Amino acid sequence: MKKITLLGAGCWGVTLGALLFKKGYSINFWEYDEKKAEELIKKRTLKRLPHLKLDKEIKISTDLEELLRESEILIFAVPSQVFRETAKKALIHLGEKIELIISATKGLERKTCSRMSEILKKEFPENLKNKIAALSGPSHAEEVSQEFPTAVVIASENEEVLTQAQKIFFSPFLRVYTQKDIIGVEFAGAAKNVYAIASGISDGLNLGDNSKAALLTRSLAEMQRLGEKIGAKKSTFLGLAGVGDLVVTCYSRHSRNRQFGELIAKGKEKEKALQEIGMVVEGFYTVESLCQLAEEKNVELPIAKEIYQILFLKKDCRLSMRDLLSREMRAE
Amino acid sequence: MKKITLLGAGCWGVTLGALLFKKGYSINFWEYDEKKAEELIKKRTLKRLPHLKLDKEIKISTDLEELLRESEILIFAVPSQVFRETAKKALIHLGEKIELIISATKGLERKTCSRMSEILKKEFPENLKNKIAALSGPSHAEEVSQEFPTAVVIASENEEVLTQAQKIFFSPFLRVYTQKDIIGVEFAGAAKNVYAIASGISDGLNLGDNSKAALLTRSLAEMQRLGEKIGAKKSTFLGLAGVGDLVVTCYSRHSRNRQFGELIAKGKEKEKALQEIGMVVEGFYTVESLCQLAEEKNVELPIAKEIYQILFLKKDCRLSMRDLLSREMRAE
Repeated sequence: MKKITLLGAGCWGVTLGALLFKKGYSINFWEYDEKKAEELIKKRTLKRLPHLKLDKEIKISTDLEELLRESEILIFAVPSQVFRETAKKALIHLGEKIELIISATKGLERKTCSRMSEILKKEFPENLKNKIAALSGPSHAEEVSQEFPTAVVIASENEEVLTQAQKIFFSPFLRVYTQKDIIGVEFAGAAKNVYAIASGISDGLNLGDNSKAALLTRSLAEMQRLGEKIGAKKSTFLGLAGVGDLVVTCYSRHSRNRQFGELIAKGKEKEKALQEIGMVVEGFYTVESLCQLAEEKNVELPIAKEIYQILFLKKDCRLSMRDLLSREMRAE
Repeated sequence: MKKITLLGAGCWGVTLGALLFKKGYSINFWEYDEKKAEELIKKRTLKRLPHLKLDKEIKISTDLEELLRESEILIFAVPSQVFRETAKKALIHLGEKIELIISATKGLERKTCSRMSEILKKEFPENLKNKIAALSGPSHAEEVSQEFPTAVVIASENEEVLTQAQKIFFSPFLRVYTQKDIIGVEFAGAAKNVYAIASGISDGLNLGDNSKAALLTRSLAEMQRLGEKIGAKKSTFLGLAGVGDLVVTCYSRHSRNRQFGELIAKGKEKEKALQEIGMVVEGFYTVESLCQLAEEKNVELPIAKEIYQILFLKKDCRLSMRDLLSREMRAE
């Protein structure tokens, strides 16, 4: 069976690795952080995924060269803000056998506002550009690792890549749908984390189920509005990578972005809230890019803008929510 | 101020009546059930809405003639299956002053599959047909009655009616958006109750957040597919009356349809489950119409069909969910 290297041994990466190992693939993990790698080698599990055990045949290392020489499939599961440097490092050691490169990271790079597959296309040579796919959809690792039924989306402009990637991930409890709109899939997957922070703030302020649903509806409209301006398809936002992922991230107790918003609403300083969650809160980094993109494309994003003001300009949460909810009466 | 008669003194009717009274309208309630009317006259509140008190100036009666003679605005908040007979009764006594007729009921009539405004158009004379509107959106009475911020939709084909109805309901905590697509608004408001039963079943079987989000995504697609075939606009399903109301009904602890599904999944007989909830579970009646409409219009609704089979053909919930989740791999 094919050799797969996973870059990043966080919850999602480890979950995917365990799933693919069970399907018979040869699995390697690369982890940047030596301490984390050592701990994973020793314990073979993560604190947040107590049900999961990585088999001893799965290799975990901080040495990219050794891992990548023979790899046929590469899966990125690193935080979005270190995606580009990881891609650059990986490229140096990438062997001849590589046939598929998949991003399982959801976010937008700061400053450039790039999607993850855009970074790959920018950094990787011509012969690799048509081997790229993105994995998205409502898929909390806590549940996938316990084999709860889950449906995900694999996106690529290349039909062959789609078919190949679909077969790799497919399993009895994981349904994999294909999508040609990689722009929409990646953009929605990044943006929803920002709106999950808004949902968390609504939870923290006890605004109730009605206004949380209204907020989610408006969030979806915002995502779609800006998404279309950058080339995404409208219909993608109605699918698993759009509304599906948005709903799970806004409503699940597993969602760190939602949880972060809740802590903020309860008066916690953002640094302390990030620390308390102890894992990367992608929406915290994405909100800046989202607002920047909106300005470039001349699109209004009232909710994202309020989240930015709360997190970076110390605007009061309550005031933000009041401002959002009291915008003038009008047609939908 | 104008005289409003509310037909039906259930949770939603009573909530709307209290809100409109506070805005200065003269409010009358008509309640079919004498015992319920007497209790409401005495207690001035409903068990499920302990925070709410109806002012003594609000009249509650079972005598339609007396109430309707001077009414200028009529609001229907009766269950969908008694909507037509209520409309027929009301028509007999309707005075000359009537200028607006609003349906706040969400459902489809059995056998005819009619939306509530369709029933009104069928039963009412020509001069009243252009005074009709429908109220919808994510608005659990338990929260609106406590003045939690809420956003609703008022729908009508008539611009003047829209503006008038928007002004009637608007209040500092209730934002009212207008929508010209009354077909989409009413159809979505009815269909979502069926899909909330599906969500409840997923909850009852502990299928997890990932599959619940996938189920909601597919539910929205089903609603939209059939909705478009009966003349609804696609975009309506992305709005408050579509995804907004669907989300709140699938996720809120206040939702009786969700709760009903949960009880069914836990093995309760449907009659006992209906009894335990003690209020009308609209989705239970709507599922039949939904499946009938789907057959007439030649649209596939896998989720609604499974709910029908569970409720009326004794199909096992677990088997239904497995069948839904194991449909063949394909593009979104």
